[in-house]
Amino acid sequence: MRNIRMIVEYDGTKYRGWQRQTATDMTIQGKLEHVISEMVGKKTEIVGSGRTDAGAHAYGQVANFHTKSTLSIKEMYQYINQYLPQDIVVKELKEAGPRFHSRYNVKGKKYVYRIWNESTASVFHRKHSYHVPQALNLELMQEAAAKLVGTYDFLPFSSVKKSEKTTVRTIESITIEKKDAFVEITIVGDGFLYNMVRIITGTLIEIGSKKKKPTYIDEIFSVGKRQNAGETVPSQGLFLIEVYYN
Amino acid sequence: MRNIRMIVEYDGTKYRGWQRQTATDMTIQGKLEHVISEMVGKKTEIVGSGRTDAGAHAYGQVANFHTKSTLSIKEMYQYINQYLPQDIVVKELKEAGPRFHSRYNVKGKKYVYRIWNESTASVFHRKHSYHVPQALNLELMQEAAAKLVGTYDFLPFSSVKKSEKTTVRTIESITIEKKDAFVEITIVGDGFLYNMVRIITGTLIEIGSKKKKPTYIDEIFSVGKRQNAGETVPSQGLFLIEVYYN
Repeated sequence: MRNIRMIVEYDGTKYRGWQRQTATDMTIQGKLEHVISEMVGKKTEIVGSGRTDAGAHAYGQVANFHTKSTLSIKEMYQYINQYLPQDIVVKELKEAGPRFHSRYNVKGKKYVYRIWNESTASVFHRKHSYHVPQALNLELMQEAAAKLVGTYDFLPFSSVKKSEKTTVRTIESITIEKKDAFVEITIVGDGFLYNMVRIITGTLIEIGSKKKKPTYIDEIFSVGKRQNAGETVPSQGLFLIEVYYN
Repeated sequence: MRNIRMIVEYDGTKYRGWQRQTATDMTIQGKLEHVISEMVGKKTEIVGSGRTDAGAHAYGQVANFHTKSTLSIKEMYQYINQYLPQDIVVKELKEAGPRFHSRYNVKGKKYVYRIWNESTASVFHRKHSYHVPQALNLELMQEAAAKLVGTYDFLPFSSVKKSEKTTVRTIESITIEKKDAFVEITIVGDGFLYNMVRIITGTLIEIGSKKKKPTYIDEIFSVGKRQNAGETVPSQGLFLIEVYYN
């Protein structure tokens, strides 16, 4: 069996997220499996690096599938991109070693949350960013973000209910940059809990707009409950940028 | 009567262009007039700086309207942006002198044509750019563009049929820049004939992809016929950036 590894870019606006749930719902995984199954002439499942939320986007989702197809890499690349809808593109496709697994082998991920920080909304970026009209103070946000870098129990920054599994994660870096009218929050970590990037962003926005102080982060960690953190900002500003493997 | 001047940004994807044609068609002018008429309680016509094509976009279309309304500038700004569809935004609104006329007073315009110049299409920019997969040589395009700067009869670079009016126009500058994966062609001139920016762009793409040489421009001018120039590239890459007045 060949093991084929892909990098997938998608505009998630119309989709219920990455993960297929029923046979016919609008998911990225479902669309890819449909096209790949037609291509190889056999029902084929793909494995992604992990879920992405309904409405969230990706520049670099990673997925793989096993096949006995004798099509060349170039033929597969062309077929898939020809038959995928225009809001999903396979940017890279190659042979992987037999043991490569898109989910089990993940070492970390990079997400960006993109804020449109102008008084007027942008007609061009409204589906790929979140509009925050009040001016954000980046220094305050950076001071707060520094408190999130490290290994902590991120349960209060997630929508995880009580769970048997650990909610300890490591954030390796958070950078907050102004790029034209955008404020971009880039987070690299070894793993992310459900809604973690969106709740961290909502919390940092409260600090950047001076509703809360940077020490708000310390309070959230010490109380340890979800309801103390900021709101879950909309998925339309969230992008999975890269998945890291060894 | 007050004379109100606006700067309008729009994503033209869903529209049949700026100019209202029937009472109910999807045009930017029609949408604005509908909201403004409701606001002032009286059927109100607006004047734009000129048409934009079906599917083309604007960062800085200028329009004005006359009204006896006593609403403040701030109230108008808020009302209009609240009731406009999300793909149209009034970025600026102010009182103009009584004689200001958005179309008659135009001194020049700046357009950008945006090309996505990567082998794979972009899922995020596909509605606001034109995908050219083959690599473009910017030096050749710049050499050709320099031949278009000046005062010439641009009839062969337009879709104008025989006309009583002059087809002589002045292009003040053309710059061609690489910005990440985009190639952006920026054209400033005193006026533009129908399809002129899109045909100039189509011609420059033929030169940048080495199907033609920069001297192709000289040939088109000397023969003087539309069918000798490049194709009319799609409107989705075209942006009206700014309108100049004295």
